[in-house]
Amino acid sequence: MTLKKILIVSGTHGNEINTVWAVNQFSNQKNTFDKDIEYKYIIGNPLAYERGCRYVDKDLNRSFDLSKSYFDNSIYEINRANFLIERFGINGSEPCQIAIDLHTTTANMGTSIVMYGRRVKDFCLAALLQHKFGLPIYLHEKDKKQTGFLVEAWPCGLVIEIGSVAQNFYNPEIINRFLIIIGSLRDEIRKLKNNQIKLPRSLVVYIHQGSIDYPRKENGDIDSLIHPKRMNQDWKPVKKGDPLFIDMEGNTKIYRGEDTIWPVFIGEVAYKEKNIAMSYTKKEVISLPIRIPEEFFS
Amino acid sequence: MTLKKILIVSGTHGNEINTVWAVNQFSNQKNTFDKDIEYKYIIGNPLAYERGCRYVDKDLNRSFDLSKSYFDNSIYEINRANFLIERFGINGSEPCQIAIDLHTTTANMGTSIVMYGRRVKDFCLAALLQHKFGLPIYLHEKDKKQTGFLVEAWPCGLVIEIGSVAQNFYNPEIINRFLIIIGSLRDEIRKLKNNQIKLPRSLVVYIHQGSIDYPRKENGDIDSLIHPKRMNQDWKPVKKGDPLFIDMEGNTKIYRGEDTIWPVFIGEVAYKEKNIAMSYTKKEVISLPIRIPEEFFS
Repeated sequence: MTLKKILIVSGTHGNEINTVWAVNQFSNQKNTFDKDIEYKYIIGNPLAYERGCRYVDKDLNRSFDLSKSYFDNSIYEINRANFLIERFGINGSEPCQIAIDLHTTTANMGTSIVMYGRRVKDFCLAALLQHKFGLPIYLHEKDKKQTGFLVEAWPCGLVIEIGSVAQNFYNPEIINRFLIIIGSLRDEIRKLKNNQIKLPRSLVVYIHQGSIDYPRKENGDIDSLIHPKRMNQDWKPVKKGDPLFIDMEGNTKIYRGEDTIWPVFIGEVAYKEKNIAMSYTKKEVISLPIRIPEEFFS
Repeated sequence: MTLKKILIVSGTHGNEINTVWAVNQFSNQKNTFDKDIEYKYIIGNPLAYERGCRYVDKDLNRSFDLSKSYFDNSIYEINRANFLIERFGINGSEPCQIAIDLHTTTANMGTSIVMYGRRVKDFCLAALLQHKFGLPIYLHEKDKKQTGFLVEAWPCGLVIEIGSVAQNFYNPEIINRFLIIIGSLRDEIRKLKNNQIKLPRSLVVYIHQGSIDYPRKENGDIDSLIHPKRMNQDWKPVKKGDPLFIDMEGNTKIYRGEDTIWPVFIGEVAYKEKNIAMSYTKKEVISLPIRIPEEFFS
């Protein structure tokens, strides 16, 4: 496999419209052609994008679990996942070796990188971006409740997640941040290929540990809100005794764990239906393999 | 008519969930009973609230145009408007003399008061709130494209509009702002009734002049975004030559009018379908009638 094509997926969630705008704007720019490394662009979920909703039948970014429901063609997003793999998958008609899936969040996470599992090539790519932009890396693994992510269907792939921005709300600042990341990707990979930069030996990552639901009443209604001291405090450590939620009477629910956690996706609107008020991570330094570039381009 | 009951409507738009939370929290508080002035609470659009969307068939806050479509019962929101008037209208089974309709916006408008037309009683109520909290007043009138607002179906009524907050996103700060306003309403009206405060002789209002759509392509797609210099700048004056929009090539579309305007609802997500990128107002000082209190309680 020679690295030739990078697939940029926007609108995997149809109401994350800044991703689509950014990719359209980027692909319209002149001088984006490169004979070594080519970009491919696709709107992940065009029907949901047209309707201004996250998905039609099922979250597209949970529809790439090839072992499970790949062949249930009555579901729009399963069909769409199928199509994307057949066209841009590594054995597809226009094979791409890397997939970059662009997302926005209503949580105050800034620009971050989301990795799924510990593939060496993903670490390479994440290290390149962290090295250049200092972005936090959220490593998502070992969550049986959440599987079937898009980038897992490619040999290498990351999510770029930018927030906070409301669903269906255009924000030029968010768009600019996407433009910078997309534009840098190829340049950085080319530098790596030409031995112009070296990857670091270690990476700081926030490793997914689990998620916390809102406290709920017996009928399932949300009973407490995210505590004001927790609002917009993504990536900030939470220690035993720190407040997490507050109910209508002003009672606080505190964090009772012994270990410090670093919450992310605090209050993300789209995760309410998944019973997630926030996810939480532990912060770790991970060593990278020594011979990364060879592995990366092999 | 003696002022006895204030109707507090939350969730007129089903995805403005902080209004519903605030009203639930307020109505659960002790010591909210008052023999002179009673609060009534209702969720405007319960089905849309359950679904997490703005409306089911038609914007409920454009469904109170009694002359037009009042009897088209195939539309959920027309039915609902009918029900609300029959129950809480001035001739209803539980008549309320004032309606307060709570809304949130994705625009950075802070807390504001929206008035529809120039009814003396509305000016009274708006003056009370502006006097206490210094809130800007948006006077909506003479827009034939937008009619049928809920509060117009009551003899007196205002919208309380708070932002910025994303749709379906709980924010304790936004909820607290609602709680303060709701709680103050009755106290202020009681003071006025007991001659403990006087209304000002004049009010600063932002009078609706019209709305500006996004620049669009021939196929109707949005062609330019709100200019970064305009983002989050609600209530700030715009003069001839100031930037309004920016397209993908970086070209700026400027404001070409001679008169200074004060935009509001800049980038409001829910207004994209109404072809509104922002509304604009002129700022004016309006004199109030001298004998307000008598009129107010008559």
